[in-house]
Amino acid sequence: MGNIDSLPVRSDLVGLKPYGAPHLNVPVQLNVNENAYPLPDVVVESMRAAVDDHFAGLNRYPDREFTALREHLVTYLDGVNERAGDSVDLDPSMIWAANGSNEVLSHIVQAFGGPGRTVLGFTPSYSMHPLITTGTGAEWQHVERKDDFTLDAETVAAEVARANPDIVFLCTPNNPTGTSIGLDVIEAAYDNCAGIVIVDEAYAEFSRPAKSSAMTLLEGRPRLVVSRTMSKAFACAGLRLGYAIAAPELIDVLSLVRLPYHLSEVTQVLACTALEHAELLLGNVDRLIDSRNRISSHLAEAGFTVHDSDSNFVLFGNIASPAELWQKLLDRGVLIRDIGITGHARVNAGTEAETEAFLTAIDDILAESPDVLADRPQSPTPSSAAPTKGTP
Amino acid sequence: MGNIDSLPVRSDLVGLKPYGAPHLNVPVQLNVNENAYPLPDVVVESMRAAVDDHFAGLNRYPDREFTALREHLVTYLDGVNERAGDSVDLDPSMIWAANGSNEVLSHIVQAFGGPGRTVLGFTPSYSMHPLITTGTGAEWQHVERKDDFTLDAETVAAEVARANPDIVFLCTPNNPTGTSIGLDVIEAAYDNCAGIVIVDEAYAEFSRPAKSSAMTLLEGRPRLVVSRTMSKAFACAGLRLGYAIAAPELIDVLSLVRLPYHLSEVTQVLACTALEHAELLLGNVDRLIDSRNRISSHLAEAGFTVHDSDSNFVLFGNIASPAELWQKLLDRGVLIRDIGITGHARVNAGTEAETEAFLTAIDDILAESPDVLADRPQSPTPSSAAPTKGTP
Repeated sequence: MGNIDSLPVRSDLVGLKPYGAPHLNVPVQLNVNENAYPLPDVVVESMRAAVDDHFAGLNRYPDREFTALREHLVTYLDGVNERAGDSVDLDPSMIWAANGSNEVLSHIVQAFGGPGRTVLGFTPSYSMHPLITTGTGAEWQHVERKDDFTLDAETVAAEVARANPDIVFLCTPNNPTGTSIGLDVIEAAYDNCAGIVIVDEAYAEFSRPAKSSAMTLLEGRPRLVVSRTMSKAFACAGLRLGYAIAAPELIDVLSLVRLPYHLSEVTQVLACTALEHAELLLGNVDRLIDSRNRISSHLAEAGFTVHDSDSNFVLFGNIASPAELWQKLLDRGVLIRDIGITGHARVNAGTEAETEAFLTAIDDILAESPDVLADRPQSPTPSSAAPTKGTP
Repeated sequence: MGNIDSLPVRSDLVGLKPYGAPHLNVPVQLNVNENAYPLPDVVVESMRAAVDDHFAGLNRYPDREFTALREHLVTYLDGVNERAGDSVDLDPSMIWAANGSNEVLSHIVQAFGGPGRTVLGFTPSYSMHPLITTGTGAEWQHVERKDDFTLDAETVAAEVARANPDIVFLCTPNNPTGTSIGLDVIEAAYDNCAGIVIVDEAYAEFSRPAKSSAMTLLEGRPRLVVSRTMSKAFACAGLRLGYAIAAPELIDVLSLVRLPYHLSEVTQVLACTALEHAELLLGNVDRLIDSRNRISSHLAEAGFTVHDSDSNFVLFGNIASPAELWQKLLDRGVLIRDIGITGHARVNAGTEAETEAFLTAIDDILAESPDVLADRPQSPTPSSAAPTKGTP
């Protein structure tokens, strides 16, 4: 940052650093939970054809209400719920979309948060939740999760009742821990406050077997909103498309705070195209889950503690110095994320080759410096720490 | 709006309606100041080629710092300043960009406004300025322009000194009046407060002969910021790309409030492509200025009062009922904008055919109902009301 002291910056921004993982040009990038697989040729071909007719007409503003995109999202979500064995009655009036789920969450917090209001989260969780909250002038409150990062209905009920927040964030599977919560936890949050309950399901498609979405709780709960993204399972991080599902009256409120024409014509068209290829794009999810499970097993066997993950990344602990391990991996061409949790680091599942490169680098580092582990195991395979859920 | 009373909406949003001109499917749309001309084939072909390589890689996040786009904007702006005969030393670190200039303005007001701060504007002006302001929790204050909607340095100096705002909005050419201000007015605002001065130059490319941009005042003025857009002269409203120019330390602050990865890969690539074709895309600006001048002369001759415009639209008055005139035009397939100024309406320049359709409809309406004019002229051509600036 340059010399900003001379400028009349909002007082709560003074001294802050911009959010974001370091951008480094490294062969194996496993730090921002991207989908490792490029879009398949069939999808590329469809995108090419779909957008072709829209260049000439870019002189006109896009559809402010993204009508076609809402319809495509309903079709996709109907399939999601059907595969999970759930019946949810969705409608385009229940859909919101914006440039990434960060913007979706920002719209919700702008509408229901703001100065004088409080927002509650259960940390560690997605680090943008507090930034989005304070960006609107609302106050961020947080409750630390237990040592294993799980959340239960009883705790959430008590903490929500105590804090009585205007908004509650629940993230499942939780970034950066990978932890899922049951629907009972969401119900507990909803029943114990009069505020908005946001369920951030950015990584939901990586849960196997498929868990019921918080969408199944929408009926009769007008203060509940579920957010999702096309950045992860859909492999469209570069497209910037997040969305939310809620009662029509809640969605209506969001149109009061969005900037008009917030979604470009091209974004709308390409997102629709990707949604038409949902099955194909989600085909790589299984491969990423395989890589994730391989990472979990390998790290556990190597002596790290590994937290159960329902996502495309793994949080692992028992690291003597996360910053040192991060650097040693970087020296070997592998970029992971030091997310600021003592003794822990996060790595996302890559392609088979990227995953292999990461695990080889880990073995290499351990052979050279066994003291990267905080506590060295007495027996070679502490199998009790290894996750079994969903592992083939 | 549905029944939102049941939801815990932020109190200042209760009762508001979403911003936006009505979306109506009408043959001649002259209501939202779009560029009437579709993108030329050469540009379409370049966009097609440019984006082609980027579909497969959409699984990755875009360049958070939009490096190439900043460089392209500097190149374009160097040309703008050169054509105006000005020497301005620009650098990529002085450039910001976001999804439309609304988002650019929103970032600035988030960074320097917010709760407890005040923002001053000179109205009538762009109606999003107060909405963006109150959206951040800042207080909107406004000073009414004179009857002819012009602004002079003396008035601005006095009003800014009196209000002592944290942010001042100056819009030139001003939407919806078309009025330009001199650089002395901007200097007067800057010199009389300790806050940020935003000069909204969304329509600057329509000023002929080219006026010096507020960019020429940036040297030594770290609190000055100039915003522009590719939606108007560049004919890229559907792409959503606004940008700003300011001292590097002011731009640095904006990275504290933007959401990470706010500009999609596709937006960045297509904006760069459009900028590479700046000369061609701006070729239609002359045609739009011709249409604007034709509208101004015709409306003045017909008995309306016409305000000098340096933009691609015309504000005209002496209308008995803007709502009725709006409806009569709509009945004839022409959509203009009733912007809520007593006795006035706004119409943007269309293609030659669209402009012809509008003027024919006006003549038809006047023949049928001469009382659409508030005061009917005694002589057939009140030439004193006709604008002459730039008219061929």
